[in-house]
Amino acid sequence: MTKILRKFRSFASDNNSGVHPEVMSAMEAANGDHVVAYGDDPVTDQAEQKFQSVFGADTEVYFVFNGTAANVLSLMSCCPSYGAIVASSTAHLAHDECGAPEKHLGSKVIQVPHRDGKIAVDDLEAVMVGFGDAHRVQPKVLSLTQATEMGSVYQPGEIQSLVKVAKKYGLLVHMDGARISNAAVSLGLNLRQATKDLGIDILSLGGTKNGLMGAEAVVFFNSQLSRNFQFLRKQSMQLASKMRFLSAQFLAFFENDLWKRNATHANQMAKKLGQMIVDIPGAQLARPVEVNSCFVRMSSSAIEKLQKEFFFYVWEPQYNEIRLMTSFDTTDSDLVKLTEAIRKSL
Amino acid sequence: MTKILRKFRSFASDNNSGVHPEVMSAMEAANGDHVVAYGDDPVTDQAEQKFQSVFGADTEVYFVFNGTAANVLSLMSCCPSYGAIVASSTAHLAHDECGAPEKHLGSKVIQVPHRDGKIAVDDLEAVMVGFGDAHRVQPKVLSLTQATEMGSVYQPGEIQSLVKVAKKYGLLVHMDGARISNAAVSLGLNLRQATKDLGIDILSLGGTKNGLMGAEAVVFFNSQLSRNFQFLRKQSMQLASKMRFLSAQFLAFFENDLWKRNATHANQMAKKLGQMIVDIPGAQLARPVEVNSCFVRMSSSAIEKLQKEFFFYVWEPQYNEIRLMTSFDTTDSDLVKLTEAIRKSL
Amino acid sequence: MTKILRKFRSFASDNNSGVHPEVMSAMEAANGDHVVAYGDDPVTDQAEQKFQSVFGADTEVYFVFNGTAANVLSLMSCCPSYGAIVASSTAHLAHDECGAPEKHLGSKVIQVPHRDGKIAVDDLEAVMVGFGDAHRVQPKVLSLTQATEMGSVYQPGEIQSLVKVAKKYGLLVHMDGARISNAAVSLGLNLRQATKDLGIDILSLGGTKNGLMGAEAVVFFNSQLSRNFQFLRKQSMQLASKMRFLSAQFLAFFENDLWKRNATHANQMAKKLGQMIVDIPGAQLARPVEVNSCFVRMSSSAIEKLQKEFFFYVWEPQYNEIRLMTSFDTTDSDLVKLTEAIRKSL
Amino acid sequence: MTKILRKFRSFASDNNSGVHPEVMSAMEAANGDHVVAYGDDPVTDQAEQKFQSVFGADTEVYFVFNGTAANVLSLMSCCPSYGAIVASSTAHLAHDECGAPEKHLGSKVIQVPHRDGKIAVDDLEAVMVGFGDAHRVQPKVLSLTQATEMGSVYQPGEIQSLVKVAKKYGLLVHMDGARISNAAVSLGLNLRQATKDLGIDILSLGGTKNGLMGAEAVVFFNSQLSRNFQFLRKQSMQLASKMRFLSAQFLAFFENDLWKRNATHANQMAKKLGQMIVDIPGAQLARPVEVNSCFVRMSSSAIEKLQKEFFFYVWEPQYNEIRLMTSFDTTDSDLVKLTEAIRKSL
Repeated sequence: MTKILRKFRSFASDNNSGVHPEVMSAMEAANGDHVVAYGDDPVTDQAEQKFQSVFGADTEVYFVFNGTAANVLSLMSCCPSYGAIVASSTAHLAHDECGAPEKHLGSKVIQVPHRDGKIAVDDLEAVMVGFGDAHRVQPKVLSLTQATEMGSVYQPGEIQSLVKVAKKYGLLVHMDGARISNAAVSLGLNLRQATKDLGIDILSLGGTKNGLMGAEAVVFFNSQLSRNFQFLRKQSMQLASKMRFLSAQFLAFFENDLWKRNATHANQMAKKLGQMIVDIPGAQLARPVEVNSCFVRMSSSAIEKLQKEFFFYVWEPQYNEIRLMTSFDTTDSDLVKLTEAIRKSL
Repeated sequence: MTKILRKFRSFASDNNSGVHPEVMSAMEAANGDHVVAYGDDPVTDQAEQKFQSVFGADTEVYFVFNGTAANVLSLMSCCPSYGAIVASSTAHLAHDECGAPEKHLGSKVIQVPHRDGKIAVDDLEAVMVGFGDAHRVQPKVLSLTQATEMGSVYQPGEIQSLVKVAKKYGLLVHMDGARISNAAVSLGLNLRQATKDLGIDILSLGGTKNGLMGAEAVVFFNSQLSRNFQFLRKQSMQLASKMRFLSAQFLAFFENDLWKRNATHANQMAKKLGQMIVDIPGAQLARPVEVNSCFVRMSSSAIEKLQKEFFFYVWEPQYNEIRLMTSFDTTDSDLVKLTEAIRKSL
Repeated sequence: MTKILRKFRSFASDNNSGVHPEVMSAMEAANGDHVVAYGDDPVTDQAEQKFQSVFGADTEVYFVFNGTAANVLSLMSCCPSYGAIVASSTAHLAHDECGAPEKHLGSKVIQVPHRDGKIAVDDLEAVMVGFGDAHRVQPKVLSLTQATEMGSVYQPGEIQSLVKVAKKYGLLVHMDGARISNAAVSLGLNLRQATKDLGIDILSLGGTKNGLMGAEAVVFFNSQLSRNFQFLRKQSMQLASKMRFLSAQFLAFFENDLWKRNATHANQMAKKLGQMIVDIPGAQLARPVEVNSCFVRMSSSAIEKLQKEFFFYVWEPQYNEIRLMTSFDTTDSDLVKLTEAIRKSL
Repeated sequence: MTKILRKFRSFASDNNSGVHPEVMSAMEAANGDHVVAYGDDPVTDQAEQKFQSVFGADTEVYFVFNGTAANVLSLMSCCPSYGAIVASSTAHLAHDECGAPEKHLGSKVIQVPHRDGKIAVDDLEAVMVGFGDAHRVQPKVLSLTQATEMGSVYQPGEIQSLVKVAKKYGLLVHMDGARISNAAVSLGLNLRQATKDLGIDILSLGGTKNGLMGAEAVVFFNSQLSRNFQFLRKQSMQLASKMRFLSAQFLAFFENDLWKRNATHANQMAKKLGQMIVDIPGAQLARPVEVNSCFVRMSSSAIEKLQKEFFFYVWEPQYNEIRLMTSFDTTDSDLVKLTEAIRKSL
């Protein structure tokens, strides 16, 4: 992979962006005097209270460094080694975490074939087998990614149906919400409505892809699960010594709904980009634009040309399908530059 | 543990301090445009080159989030599950990481009884047993903490002697350098002289306790060990998505020798504090002040009184011995306030 | 599962049979005087030499208690936690070991969709991706099951083609030979021709399903892989204290080609059973009979009736397909009783 | 280690002996017809019922292959990765299992300095620290070895006192009973009185060292702990396919109190040996003979000479102390040969 630093925004991923200025300010504000380390500080207190005001008083939240950790630690709280994690075949935890769930939990990840990134009820039912058979892993937790890796968004009813199947078989439900902000905005829901209120037990709440520097939250809506979580977090190397700087990021995240402002902007930019692409002969929008991504199909020679100008990922090589992500800081001018480059490459 | 936020500096730990202003500036400077995520960016490039200029061209460096991770991942690169890590009985990795080495490596930590925090050659020799016996764990790596948890500093000759024993038995040598800056300053050595040049194979280079926000480096002086480290780091949940903000901290760390300025100040403050304590009737300095800590013995009733004013740790309860840490931002006025409080408590 | 003990043989699995009398005699012969424990005894010596005479002088063999251990430990010798094991979607290690590979290695098992139980070259090529990408597990070992879980047998050329693909990408090749005896007999090959000579690096050689009491062998054809295996076996709880009784079973296994006599008989019984079933109206042979199993389709009501008489597994519920296994001790009279019961149930 | 097969009995370990004839007969009796695999068979049923008649109706028992597995799996049922196992510094699980507890549980083993092999109440209290502190492993289970590795036997009152401390801090209590038969006989107690009735929660009941071929039992006196044990056993590669042959060994173990007859004989032989050694000038009995071991001190040159005749272990090299174990099949003539050789070597 060659290094590319553009004077304008990339479309490779929302984590290629920097830190939102309000987040940076909050981190500076948290600096200065001494506080007790490891989270026993007033900034963390305030951030925890904020989560409780957003998600309900019985919520417990633990901050970790990145999304892989948020997912793995969430699952660790509810899945024994002989248990299985059920996830979509496109799930980040199944594909893009270098086997971290298998390593840290010792558990199998059962991959359900996806439909536009989502798990369908029938496909979930099909893997609800082997319970009580010592030779088989025991399904213990369903992990849903919202928004999905394919840029689709589960409708509330879809989630509720999947949760119902999961509960029928005694599974808990985790949500990988690396892009939950974008999904919630897309659905017109607040963060609680998009998660806890649909029956989710544990949430990996993503911050980094929505303007934070590097902070994710494991949010428990079921306090039984979090009883020993402080030990799991520490042993899993995810306890920040100067915790206040993670907490400060989440204070900014909620301040004047920054999460919503950022996600709304990113989603709108993707929507605009999609409309611009529709007008380009030779480029097809491969999927509806639901969050901050456009999936575009074009000739492989055009893709090659475009790659000289922009860094992005070819998502489905067999279909010449590329993924273009927008971010909280994508500008109209970026869209123009990108679409001009696309036109030129075709 | 009750929360304490003082308008003046704490003496509980050097990680109770905030972030040095130059570090904060470097992080802001790294913000702005888009860069490729996960370390394939120019800031990280620059930081890696800086490490190579400091430690030699054949050095490989990987940034991680915290000290536990730096230790665990260092050891993971060179110790199989049936191997054993040999460490002092006071080592952070043996006591203060909630069993992280055992969990992530599956290996036993053999604890060598310490002498003022250090491992002695004879004590090391005594555990060099069981090689080739399938019933016994196989010693594979010696981990030395510099400065030690007891505030002592290994002399270069002491390290060389321990390295010699380790090599004789085929062990690699890791240094837990959470406070290597303070130790190097204390010894009048630069960072390379204090580590690689003494025979260390892998270094956990600490930043967080010396003014960074949260960044540690795993530094390989033996490139064979790092061959697959990128996979171990990712699978161990320690690959930062917006890596540039870890890298920027290390750029600041080396800029105009900030590491040295910070460590020198902290060490000097501890030295001063030690001198002030010597003059207080009823308080005894328990150990020589070699880095940025003072170990003080006083009556248990005095300790209790002092705890109402200051947050600090009782290090050796059986001796009424407390640990007082200074930091890069400790002021003369802080020392005065502390020693006044000590006098008052006696 | 209700318990069934018949006065005649079951067709549920070849591990429902007992121990071949020659094996029992060998165990008795090994009893008596004292020997050094843990394998340092003359019986084990002899057994190891026997393996070397069968597979070549550079062979190393380690005995373990069961098939799951033989598979897991084989893989442990060549796959790091960030590596991946590539196996058929029907493989025992993927489905029937309660996640043991994930637990013990921390590695992901990549399941290749099977074709009649086998992996096809194209399907293997399709998962040879992600090399060098830190976000992806790294394929490190291909595991082939011979005979497969669907009763099919890889032809020598098929194995060689798969080995070629594996080697091209740097993978080692493991064979799960829980039923390698039946496969070798079916192919008209000896055990070496059926394994090492086709390019296999490590073999799980099955004994238990072919008349032993409980003994499997991990056979290394690549001595680099076995260098530290004694530690892995002990740490994995698979080092037998009274090892001679495992070794004695393998002495019997090779004595006068007991492995071949047993497998030949079991295969012939399955062949006969298949011929008898073909003649039963309403029962269809679902697959060619290649080893010691018959897969039969019949109405679900007939299956239910038959289950009252015999214990066996429904292998593909959606096709009403049952699996009937023969064993070293299946008799003609057993076949008559079974087929009469099938006729009656239809 | 050179191989030694003597025409007379060894004194290296009770696992150098073979299988008691009654055990061999029981295994033969279990052979023959087909039974369902993996423990769902009438022999296993009978063995389980036998355990319930010996230890109480609420007992649950699971058979495994060896002592390391019995210990590791017992502990796995009650200790999370962030938990700690507290054991004597001489415990088999701390020293002689190649780090198996660390590997399989991911937990730390806290070693309490032993007194003649035993843990003292004060020493146990001293490690009951760190509860609730996320940086420290959380003591979760106390493991007591009975008889100890130093040939001593805990008195019932000693066990009860240790159990009381454990319970006070919320720990469960495991007994490593690899030689529980010898200890019970020594104490004049039956197996239940020596374990469950003293407050033990989980027992590793040893068979192999007392005349079995290779069978150990994990015995739960607390049914909450065993709820998911079938999955842990399978995933841990300890589920025997032809289970009946493990079960049959335990049927023999209890038949006419074979366990007691064997242990009584072995203990008596050790007692006799001790008396014979007392009479040999230059040889000293290092410890009281409580079970089936004699610890003897003699000059290093004498030890070397003796090693040419007999295989045994030097237990405490610094004291020239050797361990001599008797077994269920040690004869008076063996004792004579050994003591003659000792005399000759001096």
